[in-house]
Amino acid sequence: MPSPELGVRALFFDVFGTLVDWRTSVARESELILGTLGFELDWLAFADAWRGEYQPGMEEVRAGRLPFSKLDVLHRANLVRMAPRFGLDNLSDEVLDDLTLVWHRLDAWPEVPAALTRLKARFRIAPVSNGNISLMVDLARRNGLPWDAILGAEIAGDYKPKPRVYLAACAALDLAPSQCMMVAAHSNDLAAAAAQGLRTGHIARPNEHGPGTGETSPSIEVDVAGRDLADLATKLGL
Amino acid sequence: MPSPELGVRALFFDVFGTLVDWRTSVARESELILGTLGFELDWLAFADAWRGEYQPGMEEVRAGRLPFSKLDVLHRANLVRMAPRFGLDNLSDEVLDDLTLVWHRLDAWPEVPAALTRLKARFRIAPVSNGNISLMVDLARRNGLPWDAILGAEIAGDYKPKPRVYLAACAALDLAPSQCMMVAAHSNDLAAAAAQGLRTGHIARPNEHGPGTGETSPSIEVDVAGRDLADLATKLGL
Repeated sequence: MPSPELGVRALFFDVFGTLVDWRTSVARESELILGTLGFELDWLAFADAWRGEYQPGMEEVRAGRLPFSKLDVLHRANLVRMAPRFGLDNLSDEVLDDLTLVWHRLDAWPEVPAALTRLKARFRIAPVSNGNISLMVDLARRNGLPWDAILGAEIAGDYKPKPRVYLAACAALDLAPSQCMMVAAHSNDLAAAAAQGLRTGHIARPNEHGPGTGETSPSIEVDVAGRDLADLATKLGL
Repeated sequence: MPSPELGVRALFFDVFGTLVDWRTSVARESELILGTLGFELDWLAFADAWRGEYQPGMEEVRAGRLPFSKLDVLHRANLVRMAPRFGLDNLSDEVLDDLTLVWHRLDAWPEVPAALTRLKARFRIAPVSNGNISLMVDLARRNGLPWDAILGAEIAGDYKPKPRVYLAACAALDLAPSQCMMVAAHSNDLAAAAAQGLRTGHIARPNEHGPGTGETSPSIEVDVAGRDLADLATKLGL
């Protein structure tokens, strides 16, 4: 099990799914906007469908077919592509802009703010998310996430799981990859970080995409695994 | 006088001199390292001489003669250039590395942490400094500076007062320049920010380079001026 004695100086966090519950938050916030306009949808299905466009949207950037755009831009394009499936063919630019910002109003899983505060006592802590800086700032202010810095895709100019996103985060803190631990609820994120030499911490989020849909344990070997972030903090000696 | 009603959403801060007392901190921390090795210098003069290499070092980057390097790298090169003037001709790489990091251990002016906390209640707050991310993180952890994000030179890939440093900070928060206020104790920094459309806030730091050496008031027209950061917060309605 890793411990400060093993030289971990910074913890990097995946955010969507790992620290915040995007699914019920996007459903709730979308209903607030579209329900007022008279739409009645399956709001959780709407959130799932929007999130379903997430990886294909980023892949255009990762593959070099599109220049880097911040995730807000991709979220909006993904919405435009997906909305007709829900009968939303003629949303105004203003409504599309408003909806795009629902991703700035996601709620943290309950234990996260206090656990991050515990972890900050010993480690530098930063999101290494595909979300853009302004989105990360808004989630932090909403939920009281005490980041030391906002790292991730916008700093690197590319999207996870591209190696440079993890390596740019280490470089920003002047640390070797072996001094940094990626924390995520997704084994593929951790596998990509480990391939660059980072340590890995897994958190179970069994309900990320709905009850029983998320990873309850990692599918790869990791340095530490927790039931949630509070458990991970305990296992890191805090 | 600017107020939240006038649309300012974010405050950007110069750090060296404006928020932290680099002079007495560098003198003290350098003495801790070099005094132990038997050197007896005028430590304040040493700090002043090191800082004196600051603008020429960055100018190589701003003029395009050197690729962007983080300020830690420039601080070390500036030290190597300046140290012989103090009889320090043969410092080891280890001592040079240790000395470079004294810039990560600067003390905030006394009112700064509480004033930033007040300001954060209404504004997004971020350093827009020429210091690198890891340096800003270390100063924040040492002094309890509750940043929303670390912006500035390393994000922009260039040094103030180049326009892109200010504009990259606005863009990172999805704000127009008119929604952002640069806060500094140096009129030239504020003039450069204003030229890009940012609002401006001045803080008096009359003792930055020693008693009576700093700006007691701005030499240009600014939107708001404070005796210190607490006074500025009050004048911004907090």
